[in-house]
Amino acid sequence: MEMTTKNQSKRFVFSQEVAWEDLGGGIRRQILGYDEHLMLVRVLFEKGAVGVVHHHPHRQTTYVESGVFRVRIGDEEAILKAGDGFFVPPDVPHGAEALEAGSLIDVFAPARRSFLGFDED
Amino acid sequence: MEMTTKNQSKRFVFSQEVAWEDLGGGIRRQILGYDEHLMLVRVLFEKGAVGVVHHHPHRQTTYVESGVFRVRIGDEEAILKAGDGFFVPPDVPHGAEALEAGSLIDVFAPARRSFLGFDED
Repeated sequence: MEMTTKNQSKRFVFSQEVAWEDLGGGIRRQILGYDEHLMLVRVLFEKGAVGVVHHHPHRQTTYVESGVFRVRIGDEEAILKAGDGFFVPPDVPHGAEALEAGSLIDVFAPARRSFLGFDED
Repeated sequence: MEMTTKNQSKRFVFSQEVAWEDLGGGIRRQILGYDEHLMLVRVLFEKGAVGVVHHHPHRQTTYVESGVFRVRIGDEEAILKAGDGFFVPPDVPHGAEALEAGSLIDVFAPARRSFLGFDED
């Protein structure tokens, strides 16, 4: 399925109007502003929740909104707190574990098509 | 000046290691994770601070981390609070006024070259 210019969020995105998707394991996400080239996703982690190591061709940068996370990118690992961030180049394996409950603002370029229900990511 | 693959942030970005840039008028920003295609910027607003209407060819999506903002995009205006967001297509005029002190997570694709000291944006 091809993404078109219709595949974009409203210009103003009100949190209370956007569904939370329960990913299981204490992780929920909400897709906020996006078009096919850029996508912002808010991800809530319960304490101890693990975003397992994975990789994708989309570059990603993330902002730690709250909580404490152990983040792995490639062979490196760091403990990040509110106000910190990280950058994942395309195809580099990465994962995050919530040492304290918190939230991440994940941003992708291009958009994660699969998050929108498209076949290909 | 051409951006190269060296024009990217460290993979782990610790807030306390990143300079705050004072833009005047009660606005400060910190550039967090980026490469040439994607850039995340945290922007702090004092109450009443105004990000005047401007436009750029980079698409932008923003997350309201805290505070209350009156946001204008093109001919539309909305009041956004913590947890909300917005999306600005390329070249569409936009601006934000902090009705309460707060912070925005601005994300751009491609990166804002001028923020990094390059001639062209």
